[in-house]
Amino acid sequence: MNLTVYLAGQIHDPWRDELIEKAHSKDLPLTFVSPMTNHSRSDAIGEEISGEQPTKIMKDDKASEFNNLRTEVLMAKSDVVIAYFGESYKQWNTAMDASTALAKNKPLILIRDESLHHALKELSNKATATVENFDQAIKALSYVFETE
Amino acid sequence: MNLTVYLAGQIHDPWRDELIEKAHSKDLPLTFVSPMTNHSRSDAIGEEISGEQPTKIMKDDKASEFNNLRTEVLMAKSDVVIAYFGESYKQWNTAMDASTALAKNKPLILIRDESLHHALKELSNKATATVENFDQAIKALSYVFETE
Amino acid sequence: MNLTVYLAGQIHDPWRDELIEKAHSKDLPLTFVSPMTNHSRSDAIGEEISGEQPTKIMKDDKASEFNNLRTEVLMAKSDVVIAYFGESYKQWNTAMDASTALAKNKPLILIRDESLHHALKELSNKATATVENFDQAIKALSYVFETE
Amino acid sequence: MNLTVYLAGQIHDPWRDELIEKAHSKDLPLTFVSPMTNHSRSDAIGEEISGEQPTKIMKDDKASEFNNLRTEVLMAKSDVVIAYFGESYKQWNTAMDASTALAKNKPLILIRDESLHHALKELSNKATATVENFDQAIKALSYVFETE
Amino acid sequence: MNLTVYLAGQIHDPWRDELIEKAHSKDLPLTFVSPMTNHSRSDAIGEEISGEQPTKIMKDDKASEFNNLRTEVLMAKSDVVIAYFGESYKQWNTAMDASTALAKNKPLILIRDESLHHALKELSNKATATVENFDQAIKALSYVFETE
Amino acid sequence: MNLTVYLAGQIHDPWRDELIEKAHSKDLPLTFVSPMTNHSRSDAIGEEISGEQPTKIMKDDKASEFNNLRTEVLMAKSDVVIAYFGESYKQWNTAMDASTALAKNKPLILIRDESLHHALKELSNKATATVENFDQAIKALSYVFETE
Amino acid sequence: MNLTVYLAGQIHDPWRDELIEKAHSKDLPLTFVSPMTNHSRSDAIGEEISGEQPTKIMKDDKASEFNNLRTEVLMAKSDVVIAYFGESYKQWNTAMDASTALAKNKPLILIRDESLHHALKELSNKATATVENFDQAIKALSYVFETE
Amino acid sequence: MNLTVYLAGQIHDPWRDELIEKAHSKDLPLTFVSPMTNHSRSDAIGEEISGEQPTKIMKDDKASEFNNLRTEVLMAKSDVVIAYFGESYKQWNTAMDASTALAKNKPLILIRDESLHHALKELSNKATATVENFDQAIKALSYVFETE
Repeated sequence: MNLTVYLAGQIHDPWRDELIEKAHSKDLPLTFVSPMTNHSRSDAIGEEISGEQPTKIMKDDKASEFNNLRTEVLMAKSDVVIAYFGESYKQWNTAMDASTALAKNKPLILIRDESLHHALKELSNKATATVENFDQAIKALSYVFETE
Repeated sequence: MNLTVYLAGQIHDPWRDELIEKAHSKDLPLTFVSPMTNHSRSDAIGEEISGEQPTKIMKDDKASEFNNLRTEVLMAKSDVVIAYFGESYKQWNTAMDASTALAKNKPLILIRDESLHHALKELSNKATATVENFDQAIKALSYVFETE
Repeated sequence: MNLTVYLAGQIHDPWRDELIEKAHSKDLPLTFVSPMTNHSRSDAIGEEISGEQPTKIMKDDKASEFNNLRTEVLMAKSDVVIAYFGESYKQWNTAMDASTALAKNKPLILIRDESLHHALKELSNKATATVENFDQAIKALSYVFETE
Repeated sequence: MNLTVYLAGQIHDPWRDELIEKAHSKDLPLTFVSPMTNHSRSDAIGEEISGEQPTKIMKDDKASEFNNLRTEVLMAKSDVVIAYFGESYKQWNTAMDASTALAKNKPLILIRDESLHHALKELSNKATATVENFDQAIKALSYVFETE
Repeated sequence: MNLTVYLAGQIHDPWRDELIEKAHSKDLPLTFVSPMTNHSRSDAIGEEISGEQPTKIMKDDKASEFNNLRTEVLMAKSDVVIAYFGESYKQWNTAMDASTALAKNKPLILIRDESLHHALKELSNKATATVENFDQAIKALSYVFETE
Repeated sequence: MNLTVYLAGQIHDPWRDELIEKAHSKDLPLTFVSPMTNHSRSDAIGEEISGEQPTKIMKDDKASEFNNLRTEVLMAKSDVVIAYFGESYKQWNTAMDASTALAKNKPLILIRDESLHHALKELSNKATATVENFDQAIKALSYVFETE
Repeated sequence: MNLTVYLAGQIHDPWRDELIEKAHSKDLPLTFVSPMTNHSRSDAIGEEISGEQPTKIMKDDKASEFNNLRTEVLMAKSDVVIAYFGESYKQWNTAMDASTALAKNKPLILIRDESLHHALKELSNKATATVENFDQAIKALSYVFETE
Repeated sequence: MNLTVYLAGQIHDPWRDELIEKAHSKDLPLTFVSPMTNHSRSDAIGEEISGEQPTKIMKDDKASEFNNLRTEVLMAKSDVVIAYFGESYKQWNTAMDASTALAKNKPLILIRDESLHHALKELSNKATATVENFDQAIKALSYVFETE
């Protein structure tokens, strides 16, 4: 049994690499997918595909279409969603992906530092599991496969 | 035909009063519901109902249970969800309520100042309609009832 | 038992008035809802609510948000959808509303002249019932209530 | 990860060949499916399978059964739907397939020339992404797989 | 609390009258709906609404459209479905309505004489409750309302 | 806004009366429904409706049909489910009703003494809210309606 | 692309063998599944698995449990359902399987001789396609795979 | 065709080993999954992953998060659920998993000694099939694959 895991979260730093490496070092049968993590490309994808847009709003709108296309296709293929919240950035897309997963009955692992608990308390309460760091998230995924 | 409208958004200032008053001044057949808007009570509701909790995290967890109960019951009764994002606060619950509404096929009106468009571009693209202020949101609701 | 009926179709001429009058003359317990039938207002609603838009595409996009909001809210309230196709206009919104109704398990009455059958044969085959004119559509609705 | 893509659109000219070739030249892991693109066979399939029908309407009805069977089976297998609208033909089946995909939560890429935007504005607003030509659609699909 | 009950079953004799009278004599808050029970009208409704049809099959097809429209609208409004099977007639519509109710999570009361159990054993096993006569079906409905 | 509340739990003692009285003393707009709370009648309802059964298992099976009919009809009408677990009895029906509610997206309030937490920890974690007594459950329901 | 096809219908004669052979002779990538077609075993399976039952009704009930288990598992795995009605037998399970498929959005091919059309007109109208013999059903399945 | 079977039930003794061995001795194409069956680890998993918790309730809550994560992921992958009830333990998780499976339209085989029938009569009545021991459960699974 192989599981596909969608990694929701900000795309300003390469946190996913660390998490994926931890999974690989445990030889877990996991395939990771995520939004476009190259931030400037994610912002530019609307104009990259559809050409220059007349306003900044339209540039953003166009980019969001292709980012949402990617997210919807990949989340539909996923068995579990991990959502990671950090101290910086608005992270509204993280909240959006996490809530969408829950509403579509996808199990959700929420990763957040304890310092963020208050602001995330309602989402944490809905999440299938809440952990504080990548090691714990990987242990949680590993636990799904362990037999003793 | 009467519509029930859920008002998602921060609970630090009484923005809902202004929006509701605008709706009433137009005599629209709307019933508004919302999360508990008394912020300190929303934070304290866990201990108010279940008594003192041993840790701050548990106090928060308990509060989130009753806040989520309220939200789930009221959103299930709603025909439309309005989500208002402002400049301040994390507003992850707003993103959560908005995304939950969309995933459950509830029409969503997103209210946000144009300055917030970039950070909300993916959610705005999924929303049924995006407007910039309360007057526009009320006009959008009014448009559902107008016949010419 | 009262039924709400959504009237999908072009908004260039007042065909709905004729159909509704026929229903009223039979005293059927029906409430009719429809997209905004004032065509120029339907096209202008984006700028009416959100102010002047920088491009023609954005003006259209804005209008479509409020038109879709209206359609989604009203179709969710409906028990039956009637979709009327005539000889003129592209009528892609009619096809969209009719197909959405079917995919959401709303019974659909398709009204089209026999001359349009070939182009509509796949949609007609999926529709709950296909008729050729308003009188037949009203008789079909009336049949739901008759007891002998 | 391999994706199956349903290509909705008219069957009067071989536009799908061009789009598929562009995908293949990029080595994308995509499987394309579509309605029967041999137009005369699509019209004749009712009598081909079920024998001569007594009326033209019945010939059409029979054909539509097998065309709908094909569409329903293949769309259920698809991860993404592309709907292409051009200048010619009624294209009501295109609108039907596109709307069905959306109502069933299949991501939809709408391809249409900007000249068609007004007539398609409500459908475009609901689509996951709207592009103007085949190259852009292929780039959008490619973006789902790219990692940087 | 008022419940709407759909009465599926053959339309060759007025068995529904007997069942409804038993419910009324108990003053149960029930609204009964059913397919068109005037058999000849049910067969003729296609031509009554759409005019003479070129073949017997088309006459039947047209009638079935309006009968299915009626059934779908009324079943969607129902809280419980009762399906009555007797010794005579093919009763495939009864099996169709009963199975549709179950697949759509509507509680189903199956009424059949014990002599029919073998042929109905798989449907009976899926039904919420199976009884042998109208008195038992009414008692089952009454039990939903009783409080001691 | 009036809410319907299903009260899942054992039927050996009249705990529901106490809970309902507390709700009434607060004038909450709640309608309570429940399984048949007359235990001996609940066990006997199969034979009461369908006559003597040949074996004890069949007597039980028949009773369960009518008990499930009642539960399914009433739970479908409910906005919230309360499940109360006490120290005595197997209470597998309580666990069944609570889990069914959750799987059907009905908000669930779990009432259990803290001493039962370990055995109910997985269900409690899935419940919308967990409380320890009737007063807390009523306060939780009241909180849904309060506005400040 | 391989499709799984569930073959609903009576189990008194080996009609499925003929249909499957026709499919194999065309090298179609189809996997066929069906209810237990050994009729006496289908009737006896309750006692075969669970031992002698005290009454004929219980023997039937037990058999129906295992037959329904088989049908539910296999239909869930299927992409298309074929339902064959002939002149003999009650065939209520055939109607049940066909209607269940439709309610769960599985495409349905109905096979029936024209002589049975009247009794099956409502089911035929709901079916995705209706044909008169096995050759036509196989051609319909083949059409799903053909590309020109 | 390979089926995945989720084994719900208590984790105090190794009953699953016996059942799985019986399946293997019949060479059935089955993959079995289950909750963590190492009981002490199941209780400790919260602290194992997230570190020491301040209260016993929080230790339990944390453990339940990871146990529920595992159950939700594995049940979503399953084609059939087996729920085994024995004489000992509360087994509320067994009732929870069984009811969740039914509410999500997963076929359910209930295993219980006849002595437990009364307490499980409502759940047994909803289960797809009820048997009394492991041999019968394996025969029921085997019956899904047999062809004569």
